[in-house]
Amino acid sequence: MRLSTYFLPTLKETPAEAQIVSHRLMLRAGMVRQAAAGIYSWLPLGLRVLNKVANIVRDEQSKAGAQEILMPTIQPAELWRESGRYDDYGKEMLRIKDRHERDMLYGPTNEELITDLFRGTVKSYKALPKILYHIQWKFRDEVRPRFGVMRGREFLMKDGYSFDIDPAAARRSYNRMFISYMRTYARLGLQAIPMKADTGPIGGDLSHEFHILADTGESEVFVHKDFIGMDWSERQIDYDSDLQPLVDGLTTKYAVTDEQRDPAIEAGLGDNLIRARGIEVGHIFYFGTKYSAAMNAIVAGPNGDVPVEMGSYGIGVSRLVGALIEANHDEAGIKWPESVAPFKVGLINLKKGDSACDDACEKLYRALGTEGLYDDRDERAGVKFADMELIGLPWTLVIGPKGVSAGTVEVKHRATGEKSEMTLDAALVKFAQ
Amino acid sequence: MRLSTYFLPTLKETPAEAQIVSHRLMLRAGMVRQAAAGIYSWLPLGLRVLNKVANIVRDEQSKAGAQEILMPTIQPAELWRESGRYDDYGKEMLRIKDRHERDMLYGPTNEELITDLFRGTVKSYKALPKILYHIQWKFRDEVRPRFGVMRGREFLMKDGYSFDIDPAAARRSYNRMFISYMRTYARLGLQAIPMKADTGPIGGDLSHEFHILADTGESEVFVHKDFIGMDWSERQIDYDSDLQPLVDGLTTKYAVTDEQRDPAIEAGLGDNLIRARGIEVGHIFYFGTKYSAAMNAIVAGPNGDVPVEMGSYGIGVSRLVGALIEANHDEAGIKWPESVAPFKVGLINLKKGDSACDDACEKLYRALGTEGLYDDRDERAGVKFADMELIGLPWTLVIGPKGVSAGTVEVKHRATGEKSEMTLDAALVKFAQ
Repeated sequence: MRLSTYFLPTLKETPAEAQIVSHRLMLRAGMVRQAAAGIYSWLPLGLRVLNKVANIVRDEQSKAGAQEILMPTIQPAELWRESGRYDDYGKEMLRIKDRHERDMLYGPTNEELITDLFRGTVKSYKALPKILYHIQWKFRDEVRPRFGVMRGREFLMKDGYSFDIDPAAARRSYNRMFISYMRTYARLGLQAIPMKADTGPIGGDLSHEFHILADTGESEVFVHKDFIGMDWSERQIDYDSDLQPLVDGLTTKYAVTDEQRDPAIEAGLGDNLIRARGIEVGHIFYFGTKYSAAMNAIVAGPNGDVPVEMGSYGIGVSRLVGALIEANHDEAGIKWPESVAPFKVGLINLKKGDSACDDACEKLYRALGTEGLYDDRDERAGVKFADMELIGLPWTLVIGPKGVSAGTVEVKHRATGEKSEMTLDAALVKFAQ
Repeated sequence: MRLSTYFLPTLKETPAEAQIVSHRLMLRAGMVRQAAAGIYSWLPLGLRVLNKVANIVRDEQSKAGAQEILMPTIQPAELWRESGRYDDYGKEMLRIKDRHERDMLYGPTNEELITDLFRGTVKSYKALPKILYHIQWKFRDEVRPRFGVMRGREFLMKDGYSFDIDPAAARRSYNRMFISYMRTYARLGLQAIPMKADTGPIGGDLSHEFHILADTGESEVFVHKDFIGMDWSERQIDYDSDLQPLVDGLTTKYAVTDEQRDPAIEAGLGDNLIRARGIEVGHIFYFGTKYSAAMNAIVAGPNGDVPVEMGSYGIGVSRLVGALIEANHDEAGIKWPESVAPFKVGLINLKKGDSACDDACEKLYRALGTEGLYDDRDERAGVKFADMELIGLPWTLVIGPKGVSAGTVEVKHRATGEKSEMTLDAALVKFAQ
């Protein structure tokens, strides 16, 4: 993409309404614009990141055996009356009357809708286990939406649902999702810690939240120090194997949010206890037959008809974009992990109109393919460098007259700040898509 | 994907509520299920088609210079009050009050929201032209939703918007979109005919609808016979060239919907006039400063400040899935064009448990990659053949004991019904992903 034509409205000033760094940087880097309180439009640069995050989530869901579907945003209220949650859910639910005065709602989550879909299509345990997920916009009418996409009203969520014949099988599905979440965050360049959690309005008796640590995190968390530095990025998982030992290894160590603290355990931990701040980026639940019993989602089992055992599994996809920035930034801007960077390489032409510089840039730009962003604007070098630091691409290639005449290009690494010289040919090899 | 675990709830019976063939086949082939009147969940097979259609639209938008963004589904009513459309739009607009009693709505289209985004970010003609589009769910509260995804309430639309400094430039953007639509439909395997159209509630004075011909089409259309058989699938377009002659070539010939007929012209056409039925699959508008003037979207031009010139461009992405089936089916089921088929190849194992058949199937299945659907179920051959015809994959490979011992596989082509024998090795080469 050429910056001279790209729709990238960066801001020099920090917008007054943004209280946290990810919100400020997403506005300044031209990633999003507010459409209404807690409701955002994603501009091209932001959308590229959102899609890359979603695709990593999708890929790891698929590896764990989950199948993608797509449920609608608008749901009939009658399903929520069946489950008993319509009156319970409170003002966070966006309630709507259609032209025929039927009660509808904008889904804040999809347990009811997927249970309805399941009961209409699956009748026998022979079709189980099934894990179905979708990546769809949700709406929760927060009283005070804030922190940009971190606590918006309209937000993109991956929510998955498992269906099993008995609790033991349901536990296996829960474990698959648990481990796939660890893999997902690792691929996003995030270190997530699973924490014992309340089940809240979803219900059930087994639940974990996944938090990443960041100074700006909304919750106070207390974790065993062994979690710090844990790296799942290179783990290979056989999802058909027994995952319980892996899950046990992650859940027997102390890791809790503020509401779940246990003074007795903490006293025994001594220096092994770390107090930090966390951002919740996922939440998984096993709730058994809560919805299937209420909504009559019955399957024929080997010993007769039973309500299906269910769990649900959520990842905040749009929220993760904010969380990624909270965990990866400095004074100058964002520092994207390679896996989710909107473009892998930025290309700066220091002397537009100089034919040697222009030619070298065009050659590199072609080699970079869809992963290259070429700053071909008529702007001062300072503006170009500042914008490139702000939007935080992992690599920047700088082409100037001196380097070009020597056949070299300057290479900057955003994460470390390191600069080096490279021959044009070596850069073509290293960065070609 | 293995059919033994795939979530593909096909139906033997034709659902009573489905009046047209695409709706019947989408339900029977396990592509969608209704969540509420005119609101659908997309199951894995349907979602694969929806995504392939969306990706072709996306690719052709990008080639024509349009940039992808993503606007939210929920919009503030105040923007529609600025344009004057809030009161005009009628009951098709889903109106919502949020918890603070603010008037919101589920976007039926996005002229207001994009104009608001534009006026907040672009100030000078130097940033023009710009064409921005998104692919997002819309809601139109139809009185009587029917025909499945062809006339649903919640539907997926690609809507694009062009911004230019003057009418001549705006016409160039209009032409780009016009031609990109021709290319898009051709890649989908559809032959679309552009027709002079009313501008309706969008406004403006230049507008075309794109219709595909199908016996089950909702509108009666009248077209010059030269349009029949027109093929744009191999056209190469240089979008930086003057596209006016190409557009003229497509718009000077007679092609109209029922409301736009001209008896004088038709009398002169004689046998060249074809009467047929059409399905509307796109609509483009040039409406000048209708929204920019009302909403104060002003840019600094070379001769002072002017309201920006705009157009809008819609393709019904979810509707296209239905339209594709209307245009491509027979008694037994769907006949997908290769470009949008959910899987390119179906693989039938006639004797599961026979180690030679199983081995040959596994080998083929691995080679097919993500484009292969392997029917590894314990079902009768008749059931497997019927399901494969129903879901309409372009190619079916049949593995049975006799063929395997001779080293051959039977290959069926869904579109033509032709069957042939091929060596296993030749099939591996021909169908490997």
